[in-house]
Amino acid sequence: MPRPDLTLEQKASLLSGKDFWSTKAIDEAGIPSMFLVDGPHGLRRQDAEADHLGLHDSRPATCFPTAAAVGSSWDPGVAAELGAAIGREARVAGVTVNLGPGVNIKRSPLCGRNFEYYSEDPLLSGTLGAAHVRGLQGEGVGASVKHFAANNQETDRMRISADVDERTLREIYFPAFEKVVTEAYPATVMCSYNRLNGVYASQNRWLLTDVLRDEWGFDGVVVSDWGAVNDRVAALEAGLDLEMPGSGGVTDAEIVAAVQRGELDEAVVDRSVQRVLALTERVTPATGTLDVEAHHALARRLATECAVLLKNERNTLPLAPEARVAVIGGFAVEARFQGGGSSHVNPTRVDTALDAIRALGTSVSHARGLDDNAVEIAREADVTVVFAGLKEIDESEGYDRDTIALPDGQIDLIRRVAAVSSRTVVVLSHGGVVSLEGWHDDVDAILDGWLLGQASGSALADLLYGIANPSGHLAETIPLRLQDNPSYLNFPGEQGHVRYGEGVMVGYRYYATAEVGVRYPFGHGLSYTTFETNDLSVSVTGDDTATVSATVTNTGPVAGKHVVQVYVATGAGPVRRPTRELRAFTKVALEPGESRTVDLALGHRAFAYYDVEFARWLVAPGDYTVQIGHSAADIVAEAPITLAGEVVKRVLSLDSPVQHWFGHPVVGPLITSKITESMTSGQAKQAEEMPDSMRMIASLPMKQFTHFLTSVGTHLPDDALAELIELSKN
Amino acid sequence: MPRPDLTLEQKASLLSGKDFWSTKAIDEAGIPSMFLVDGPHGLRRQDAEADHLGLHDSRPATCFPTAAAVGSSWDPGVAAELGAAIGREARVAGVTVNLGPGVNIKRSPLCGRNFEYYSEDPLLSGTLGAAHVRGLQGEGVGASVKHFAANNQETDRMRISADVDERTLREIYFPAFEKVVTEAYPATVMCSYNRLNGVYASQNRWLLTDVLRDEWGFDGVVVSDWGAVNDRVAALEAGLDLEMPGSGGVTDAEIVAAVQRGELDEAVVDRSVQRVLALTERVTPATGTLDVEAHHALARRLATECAVLLKNERNTLPLAPEARVAVIGGFAVEARFQGGGSSHVNPTRVDTALDAIRALGTSVSHARGLDDNAVEIAREADVTVVFAGLKEIDESEGYDRDTIALPDGQIDLIRRVAAVSSRTVVVLSHGGVVSLEGWHDDVDAILDGWLLGQASGSALADLLYGIANPSGHLAETIPLRLQDNPSYLNFPGEQGHVRYGEGVMVGYRYYATAEVGVRYPFGHGLSYTTFETNDLSVSVTGDDTATVSATVTNTGPVAGKHVVQVYVATGAGPVRRPTRELRAFTKVALEPGESRTVDLALGHRAFAYYDVEFARWLVAPGDYTVQIGHSAADIVAEAPITLAGEVVKRVLSLDSPVQHWFGHPVVGPLITSKITESMTSGQAKQAEEMPDSMRMIASLPMKQFTHFLTSVGTHLPDDALAELIELSKN
Repeated sequence: MPRPDLTLEQKASLLSGKDFWSTKAIDEAGIPSMFLVDGPHGLRRQDAEADHLGLHDSRPATCFPTAAAVGSSWDPGVAAELGAAIGREARVAGVTVNLGPGVNIKRSPLCGRNFEYYSEDPLLSGTLGAAHVRGLQGEGVGASVKHFAANNQETDRMRISADVDERTLREIYFPAFEKVVTEAYPATVMCSYNRLNGVYASQNRWLLTDVLRDEWGFDGVVVSDWGAVNDRVAALEAGLDLEMPGSGGVTDAEIVAAVQRGELDEAVVDRSVQRVLALTERVTPATGTLDVEAHHALARRLATECAVLLKNERNTLPLAPEARVAVIGGFAVEARFQGGGSSHVNPTRVDTALDAIRALGTSVSHARGLDDNAVEIAREADVTVVFAGLKEIDESEGYDRDTIALPDGQIDLIRRVAAVSSRTVVVLSHGGVVSLEGWHDDVDAILDGWLLGQASGSALADLLYGIANPSGHLAETIPLRLQDNPSYLNFPGEQGHVRYGEGVMVGYRYYATAEVGVRYPFGHGLSYTTFETNDLSVSVTGDDTATVSATVTNTGPVAGKHVVQVYVATGAGPVRRPTRELRAFTKVALEPGESRTVDLALGHRAFAYYDVEFARWLVAPGDYTVQIGHSAADIVAEAPITLAGEVVKRVLSLDSPVQHWFGHPVVGPLITSKITESMTSGQAKQAEEMPDSMRMIASLPMKQFTHFLTSVGTHLPDDALAELIELSKN
Repeated sequence: MPRPDLTLEQKASLLSGKDFWSTKAIDEAGIPSMFLVDGPHGLRRQDAEADHLGLHDSRPATCFPTAAAVGSSWDPGVAAELGAAIGREARVAGVTVNLGPGVNIKRSPLCGRNFEYYSEDPLLSGTLGAAHVRGLQGEGVGASVKHFAANNQETDRMRISADVDERTLREIYFPAFEKVVTEAYPATVMCSYNRLNGVYASQNRWLLTDVLRDEWGFDGVVVSDWGAVNDRVAALEAGLDLEMPGSGGVTDAEIVAAVQRGELDEAVVDRSVQRVLALTERVTPATGTLDVEAHHALARRLATECAVLLKNERNTLPLAPEARVAVIGGFAVEARFQGGGSSHVNPTRVDTALDAIRALGTSVSHARGLDDNAVEIAREADVTVVFAGLKEIDESEGYDRDTIALPDGQIDLIRRVAAVSSRTVVVLSHGGVVSLEGWHDDVDAILDGWLLGQASGSALADLLYGIANPSGHLAETIPLRLQDNPSYLNFPGEQGHVRYGEGVMVGYRYYATAEVGVRYPFGHGLSYTTFETNDLSVSVTGDDTATVSATVTNTGPVAGKHVVQVYVATGAGPVRRPTRELRAFTKVALEPGESRTVDLALGHRAFAYYDVEFARWLVAPGDYTVQIGHSAADIVAEAPITLAGEVVKRVLSLDSPVQHWFGHPVVGPLITSKITESMTSGQAKQAEEMPDSMRMIASLPMKQFTHFLTSVGTHLPDDALAELIELSKN
């Protein structure tokens, strides 16, 4: 629907913000202003002083578990409920677009914004992101999946070039976006600040148009991260529709001038205007009221699905109500439950763990730390629960960490308390991975809450006392040392560039492939009950598809939820494959003794790699192993299959290496016989005796191989080669 | 000296070979044919059937220790003597250019051609390479330093693109070439087969002209590796002068046609012709005769300088002449002493270890392996010496290994023999690193010979019996596992590309920086005597230079040679520095009790990093530590220094990040005061309270920062910024 009623100036005005959070209305044309608001785990709606760094306050809203916690739920239901709840709050506030979810991959545990992202795995990230978008948009509010793409650090984020090869982009950094876009149809995609292979994401045509729209079919609005536009006209041409925040009209005028000078096709402006106008269809007035209590209760329930029970020796957890419990640490009374930056929510209320524990336990003492009487009360207690973790200032949008260690004071506190306590539990609150070294072996149980939102305190108490059964699993490896992380050498980069030197070997893909030991692997998570997996069967359903069936049983005493994790392992194809990759998962609730048979489909992409030579996804013919794991390092059942896959014939040329000629399904046998024909019997015998020389010449271009043949007195005529090249084209 | 007497066709004909090993003469113009011969550790002079893969036989020549062994000598004197000896053999054979040395860096232990290269360290490689060239060219024969550049694997070598960032090239893969070119003036440089960042080395103008000639001042001939030319005209324009081998005139005609069509400036042809003609000045008739015995004796003496004593518990070595010695292994009677491929020499004679040991010991038995009576003779012996290693077919030019393990049979042999023997010594022969795991702790001593040339057997016997005292040190880390190598994820690459993902963190630079344990570190090597290092003093001699002085003493019972290894450690500058880097070394011969004070200079480059933003070497102001190590992992003395270094002022622009503006030595203070002036006192107070917001905006481009300032009511006028930009240019 072209809008001839709008002037060029009016059209350009629609392509950037009016101010920090809203777009320009054109009343006479019936075009309303849109209201965009921060916050993947709650609304950050600012009134007066606006910013995109979380510096100023916003109106109260429910702070739900952060994405780092939701990632650990492994439950798209949790993500969807959370998205829907934010959608309801957004409708109350008259919000058109809520800026989330963030589906960037956790490349390094140091990234300051990891708490806003789900996982180191793209399937898990994409599945949860898509569910969040469906939940949010189901309430009529537009989503903005972000930050597209390869925005995996905060250091130098406004200019750093993420230097990433295409296979790695396609297999690791794109799939979560691809899944969200192709399955959940988000209203907008937010481009990131950084450059990708030298080109700003905001003006990267390959990224914003070729991949996002032409390949994935995205038809919504691409919005800039706040301040990400560098060259407005270049960005518009590349596919960035809406610049945020406003520039006071400066960049609108640049667009107008570029059209007037003939440097920019007005059709490009029209195209983006149409997309923005389509988005304005979502504008609705603020309606209804926020049910603060109901959303707080929801935040509490969702939080219990996210925490990960890392360790639980001697069945230290759950706590008995009558146990004498010493609660130690400042975080028990001043909850740490969200991160800093643009996602920072002004919560409607905050539960503290100490209050919640006192409501459940009959004998509870508390000390903040060693300055108080922590050691003394621990000595008297049946169980000591230490609340530890990182302060909000330790991790935030805008900067990265330089260590994964807990503060020395906390390690000291844990060790001194554990030395005297009968049993010790550590409860962790933090956005990015923290090391457990230096104290892990001193304690009996570790409950990792990540950042659980405003009901963190009560949710943790529910889990500690078994009111809820922990069912979270790590969405991110906990390494033994920061140095073990595959991005260690190349994070956060230098002099404007960060090399993704580890390629696809991110997170558990690396640890499994390089056989590097970890503290707790991706996928790990305990429960107050136990589960068994039996009767794995895998059926090949096509050249490149299969179905997996397995029966899971709750073999323990209480109800619980189990995550069935399906990995695929293969060495097929011409590229280095990770030892295993997560290809399907589902979370199953089981009563004690209950069994359920789970069926999961493995499609083309579960077996495919991205082939940069053919510029497409390919399933290589060969052997694959389908594995079920309790984590990425603990495979409990596996089954081998063989897939026909797809053999793509290469079009040969004289520059093609000998190995491509001899390996070609049609040409290979023909050229072999042609060469043999032209050989004397002595030459043929000599050739047979030199198998290693074939290894040596495998990469020789054919045109040089013919010289070589000539030099040894054999001949492969030009016209014969030309004929074979023609054959390779069929 | 232009040659108007030559036709274009004649000139073109001078730019490629006549056949495999010689160039075309033009008799009427008095231009002789040149004779180029393979072999960094001996001549491979072929007569009839010629090839560049070591497939056919060549005339007998002395096979000296390979570069892997010479690297372990840490002695430029050894390299120079070896080069001179090859030079003498070349003169006898009428050779114009001998194709060596190879100074590529050992990026992965799997590279099949590592035996032809010196080290994982560029300083060690360059120092030895330069010494070899000086020795060789001192005899009048031209050298060909190879393979330029980033040719660090054999897999797919004819087409693979080594994708390497510039800092890594400048700091790791170029310096050995740079040192050889700028200090030893080799007659020729041989370009490699592979592509560098997508462009064939043979037609890479940046590599062959900008860097090699314009920056390093090379004025000799660039010759192609045999068959490395892909596009003859493009190669010529890029700076490749001489194509080898000949193409039967095909490519000469391409050059002529390109000139005639006006696509190639004839001056480009003239330039290369002049270089080739200058090289023909070296042509001399074959003169003299080879003193086979003298060169064999030299090969034996040099070999004793190269072997590395890795382990020697209970003073198992040296062997007493009267000890009952069981010699085990096929390599004791069929010496393994060189590698496969174009460097393969037809030796004048071969010493076997068994014969040599029998000449020195009074009671020597022998068995080839378990099929013989190896366990039985080991049980009877005082000491068992097992000769183990890799077969020649296991490692060669043309293909890479896929494991660093010794063959299972050898591990089994070593373990079973060690289980019954009083004492066990393992002698290793191999070109690339082999793992010592699975048997290291079972044996008392390990003598690592690498590939010691045709006198390997007698040299090893000399070392075993203490006729010679081991003085070699590892030029390459022996890791615990292949997976620990920093190139593990990215070797040998895939689909035509190999990503140098580890950047400058090659070899010990990685192991030290990532704190990854190794079996034996770079620089490690034992002796039959002991050494102490005392009185380290370091003096700063300028903004970016220092001198090091230390006293080394032979504190043991016999004469020996000690390598003083000087490392520099720093965190200065904007790039990630390896924990330490070798910056100077020297080998000192000391009688028992003798002390010597060693003085070594550390120049600009000992402290510099390559700055890709300023496109130059820079010494950053800051703290440096000068360390003396018995290896890269065993620092025995260190001294801190502070260098003034060099502060390069940035020219600022509106695209420069805020951190560059505020960090600029002149502009920084001015802009701070300008902003402060324009603030209200309330704003200034608020700014002071937000130190973290400065971290967040550090990478914000100035033009966006001004928008931000405007949005918070502060103003930085355009003309003020323009003035500051002008100031930054001074």
